[in-house]
Amino acid sequence: MAENDSLSGFLASAVDAAKRAGEIIRKGFYETKHVEHKGTVDLVTETDKACEDLIFNHLKQLYPTHKFIGEETTAAFGVVELTDEPTWIVDPLDGTTNFVHGFPFVCVSIGLTIGKVPTVGVVYNPIMNELFTGIHGKGAFLNGNPIKVSSQTELVKSLLATEAGTKRDKPTLDSSMNRINILLAKVRSLRMTGSCALNLCGIACGRLDLFYELGFGGPWDVAAGAVIVTEAGGLVYDPSGKDFDITAQRVGASNPLLKDAFVEALQQPE
Amino acid sequence: MAENDSLSGFLASAVDAAKRAGEIIRKGFYETKHVEHKGTVDLVTETDKACEDLIFNHLKQLYPTHKFIGEETTAAFGVVELTDEPTWIVDPLDGTTNFVHGFPFVCVSIGLTIGKVPTVGVVYNPIMNELFTGIHGKGAFLNGNPIKVSSQTELVKSLLATEAGTKRDKPTLDSSMNRINILLAKVRSLRMTGSCALNLCGIACGRLDLFYELGFGGPWDVAAGAVIVTEAGGLVYDPSGKDFDITAQRVGASNPLLKDAFVEALQQPE
Repeated sequence: MAENDSLSGFLASAVDAAKRAGEIIRKGFYETKHVEHKGTVDLVTETDKACEDLIFNHLKQLYPTHKFIGEETTAAFGVVELTDEPTWIVDPLDGTTNFVHGFPFVCVSIGLTIGKVPTVGVVYNPIMNELFTGIHGKGAFLNGNPIKVSSQTELVKSLLATEAGTKRDKPTLDSSMNRINILLAKVRSLRMTGSCALNLCGIACGRLDLFYELGFGGPWDVAAGAVIVTEAGGLVYDPSGKDFDITAQRVGASNPLLKDAFVEALQQPE
Repeated sequence: MAENDSLSGFLASAVDAAKRAGEIIRKGFYETKHVEHKGTVDLVTETDKACEDLIFNHLKQLYPTHKFIGEETTAAFGVVELTDEPTWIVDPLDGTTNFVHGFPFVCVSIGLTIGKVPTVGVVYNPIMNELFTGIHGKGAFLNGNPIKVSSQTELVKSLLATEAGTKRDKPTLDSSMNRINILLAKVRSLRMTGSCALNLCGIACGRLDLFYELGFGGPWDVAAGAVIVTEAGGLVYDPSGKDFDITAQRVGASNPLLKDAFVEALQQPE
């Protein structure tokens, strides 16, 4: 099988898995408002786990020799080791807080790395019915239509996204808020959606111009989005400007024209 | 005509106007990516103006004795004076930055005050096809289904929304970021969507638990949302805890259970 054929096959399998998991998420999304709080937490855990099981079972049956990294299994069994083997990296439900609250930015994120390079990516928001896909060297798509990053060249006209994060100790908060304060003096405005994978897709389709996040959960938040951004003509990098490391829990993304100015703006005075 | 009948009639007229304006917004939304930058700015102005003209013409024909306040006309002719007369307060396109960038939180907002009390409200997001409506004393609805605010009682489990605002001088930014820093230590997470009217609707349908904004554009951002929140069982108030003033460019909103804790958290140490 030629490489292109197998990559297209991997994408089709991932889309299939994402759509099935999306059905479970959609069902749970409209139920969360009708369960008591303890019930809601259980529903999140159950939905997350059911989606990961579904996706892993589906892909393992098709690709028994591939490796698998998932948010739920990693949370349960610890440490992520990414090898050169084809590895499926899965966040079965990105935007958990949104899911609980019924805020419509939730998605399934399925990425495949080969030789540690993000090669196939699927991000599916079943509430807004948006399917983002990308294959290394073959472009990025939203519901089958080609997408590209914005052509913005100026920070002052750029729409920035980031997240408040989950660490709320004073040094982390002071540092995050100081960084946002500095950035807000330079960009047009700021959005926080609560989904790292969907923020990357926002960069890919040009809805957002700039995105960074520090300290997110793990490679499952970025594995799929990284392919989609680069295939849409964008760049994914460490917020310091260095090369992107999928395991580092640090990401910056933009079109190529904005990268230097964005990286400079992200560096805080000591 | 009985009062209830006339209020229902006012709502039907506002929904009709909002849907027609929504068509114009939807068309422009998918065009913005295909025009050059100067063109984009023109498109925003044209869309905003075309929507306001359409809504005002529609409503003035039906209610020639009513008063009208709109973002576009006020921006052109200055000062807002709200009287006791039935007054339509219209934001033809809330979320202008989102419109330019193709970020899907844009809406038409049409409110009617009678005796200065927000009495009828329509907020329509034509991209996500969500129509929020409310009539004083008759409940609030999303696409015809009754909605209510969240039943959350604890700040720490609450989802907060606010906006970065348009004033970017250092004292304003320092004050805003300091407030957000303090709040983030107390709430679950933060969302910024770029639409004040849709944030209020997010409170009304329980997607968001807490919302405040200081220094937004004018009464057109809150006139419709205020009815929808209160009819969904929520409260709209000044962030100081005092009574809401529709002309003050200051708004807080939540369910009744969270108000006291939220107002306390919003007060910054001097």
